[in-house]
Amino acid sequence: MSKNILVGQSGGPTAVINGSLYGVITKGFEMPQIDHVYGMVNGIEGFLHGQMMDMQTLIKDGTLPLVKTTPGAYLGSCRYKLPEDLADPVYPELFTRFEEHEIEAVFYIGGNDSMDTVSKLSRYAAQHESPIRFIGIPKTIDNDLVMTDHTPGFGSAAKYVASTVREIAVDASVYDNKPSVTIVEIMGRHAGWLTAASALARMFKGDNPVLIYLPETAFHPETFLAQVRRALETTTNLVVCISEGIHDNTGTFICEYANDVGTDTFGHKMLTGSGKYLENLVKETLGIKVRSVELNVSQRCSSACLSRTDLQEAILAGSYGVERAMEGATGVMITFERKEGDSYEMTPGTADVTKICNEEKTVPADWITPDGSDVTEAFLNYARPLIQGQVEVPQKDGLPYFAFRNGK
Amino acid sequence: MSKNILVGQSGGPTAVINGSLYGVITKGFEMPQIDHVYGMVNGIEGFLHGQMMDMQTLIKDGTLPLVKTTPGAYLGSCRYKLPEDLADPVYPELFTRFEEHEIEAVFYIGGNDSMDTVSKLSRYAAQHESPIRFIGIPKTIDNDLVMTDHTPGFGSAAKYVASTVREIAVDASVYDNKPSVTIVEIMGRHAGWLTAASALARMFKGDNPVLIYLPETAFHPETFLAQVRRALETTTNLVVCISEGIHDNTGTFICEYANDVGTDTFGHKMLTGSGKYLENLVKETLGIKVRSVELNVSQRCSSACLSRTDLQEAILAGSYGVERAMEGATGVMITFERKEGDSYEMTPGTADVTKICNEEKTVPADWITPDGSDVTEAFLNYARPLIQGQVEVPQKDGLPYFAFRNGK
Repeated sequence: MSKNILVGQSGGPTAVINGSLYGVITKGFEMPQIDHVYGMVNGIEGFLHGQMMDMQTLIKDGTLPLVKTTPGAYLGSCRYKLPEDLADPVYPELFTRFEEHEIEAVFYIGGNDSMDTVSKLSRYAAQHESPIRFIGIPKTIDNDLVMTDHTPGFGSAAKYVASTVREIAVDASVYDNKPSVTIVEIMGRHAGWLTAASALARMFKGDNPVLIYLPETAFHPETFLAQVRRALETTTNLVVCISEGIHDNTGTFICEYANDVGTDTFGHKMLTGSGKYLENLVKETLGIKVRSVELNVSQRCSSACLSRTDLQEAILAGSYGVERAMEGATGVMITFERKEGDSYEMTPGTADVTKICNEEKTVPADWITPDGSDVTEAFLNYARPLIQGQVEVPQKDGLPYFAFRNGK
Repeated sequence: MSKNILVGQSGGPTAVINGSLYGVITKGFEMPQIDHVYGMVNGIEGFLHGQMMDMQTLIKDGTLPLVKTTPGAYLGSCRYKLPEDLADPVYPELFTRFEEHEIEAVFYIGGNDSMDTVSKLSRYAAQHESPIRFIGIPKTIDNDLVMTDHTPGFGSAAKYVASTVREIAVDASVYDNKPSVTIVEIMGRHAGWLTAASALARMFKGDNPVLIYLPETAFHPETFLAQVRRALETTTNLVVCISEGIHDNTGTFICEYANDVGTDTFGHKMLTGSGKYLENLVKETLGIKVRSVELNVSQRCSSACLSRTDLQEAILAGSYGVERAMEGATGVMITFERKEGDSYEMTPGTADVTKICNEEKTVPADWITPDGSDVTEAFLNYARPLIQGQVEVPQKDGLPYFAFRNGK
């Protein structure tokens, strides 16, 4: 009888989600008590349809080193929510499959919704006295998981946002004899961590982005216009960063002012267009040159701005998860605790996944300035260590080279 | 009496336009017959208002090495067209200023409109027997200048486009059990060079982007929809790259189907929204998941994807321009000629700027497939050498560090 582990990825990808996969795989290969490392293809949904692969393939075809720095989810992802009712027949179906493949532990790399999956599977296992362990490996560019200092995926996304906003600010200032406003729309539905990271782009006091708006505070278009007017008095080429999720004090998203808004499979509103709406508003009100830039998916898949710190922690989250599972841990998510003091040091740990899933950690109110248009030094001190270090991504023919499933 | 040179930047910036500035400055400092290198601040328009600086400042404040890899136009740019009538009083005004500062040669780094400025100033000089030389240093991400193999600025933008499209394709394929279409909108009003560069993103035969549409051929929404349908038969997560300037056979831009379109100061139409329009069209017609991504200004200002080949050539264009001017050349633009054969080799040269300005080099018809939805191997062979090599950009606090005027 063999002892195997199973790993899957779920939800939106990040630039380092495959770093965690790499951590699980390499630790799995390293531990003598583990025979096989299997991967779910397209998460729990694909696994239910029998889609899985032996991760040994990556050794055979030589792509394991490439996986570490490949954006997206190497194993494929899904957006599949398990039923709330643990008596649903999908649970015994899943556990039969786990047992068929002699799975000792399951690692699920994802955000809130994925932690919900880990919570349900571990609770079902407890109810039915199954010895299978379930471990959540956190990833999200949104940094909105509770009970951890931060989440792998955020550091690289933050580095991308800060680098790109700095470049956009330089680009915006070439006609520095003519006033202009550039509005940069950044991902983040309810949590403004990534938008806040744009503050790292500043090279000197008063540098762009001068105004930063998070979804943690209500957004008032009139206040915004007044703040833009005031900022233009000292900054000719103003850069404003906004979260896609900014909303007014009634909870109406600013993008809804202009658009019909669809919903995704979880019922989340699909946000786009706050930047475009505000571009038109400023243009019509102030009559100056305005443009908007939506940073879009590169925030979560750019390999050019990988944070070495982030990638190392993503790998650690995976390998540490395997170690803890082999010691018997289950129903937990891997967390990071920051050591007090001047130097940056993280200790990995675990926390009850049921207390994490479906919760959302937002930027603390006292890290946002009272007028709601900036973040404080405390946020900068928190975020700066997370973007440190560069990663050399394998290149071929002048471009980053990535791993693909199916040997393509 | 001192002998000085003057350099300016104009038009939209690129990631390596400051490389050419660096080339002019360092060659100017190196040549014993040149006393001062002056910079126009905000191009010819700023110079007319007396805005200039002594480039020696960059040595004093230590920022010269940073300038080389700083995106944007370090000296500031302008969009100012000199009058067609060489009898206009602006010409003697400019030449009086040139003479006041004992300028021997003027270097103007820019695209078509900037070459028009060089043409007019050199023609005025010839008419009035002024010994001042005028040299155009080419830059444009659009690669649309004639009489040169390619233009500095294109290689880095092409590398950014190809890298980013490859990452977007990876990101788009994580839900590879559900069909989707991702439409990527790329800069290029009339010339599709940059959109064509997205073909470099392919890692294997049939890889994304499967469909590529340039403004060189008429775009038919119905044909497009049929091609998308067919492509989806073999590619679950389809990536389509379109130029912002795609238009139908009556010349109407696709973005005009949905939007009011403004014009810039040169009367060029301001294009945005073709991607969004087609996103909605595909969504409504095929009823599957569709998203659009506008690559936006990062195409011209990303320092993360600098091509070493491009940067070296940008510097060479500047330094070679100074050498030629000191030998007496005027009214010319620096060009590159490709050596026939397997290895990539470029020879710098010069061409009559009056034959270049206001012309536009588009992608040759035989480099586009007959069905108008792809580029040929000949284009790939042309473009691939231009994106080779990486550049290490100076870093500080985890982010690229740039040079700023005014010591900020």
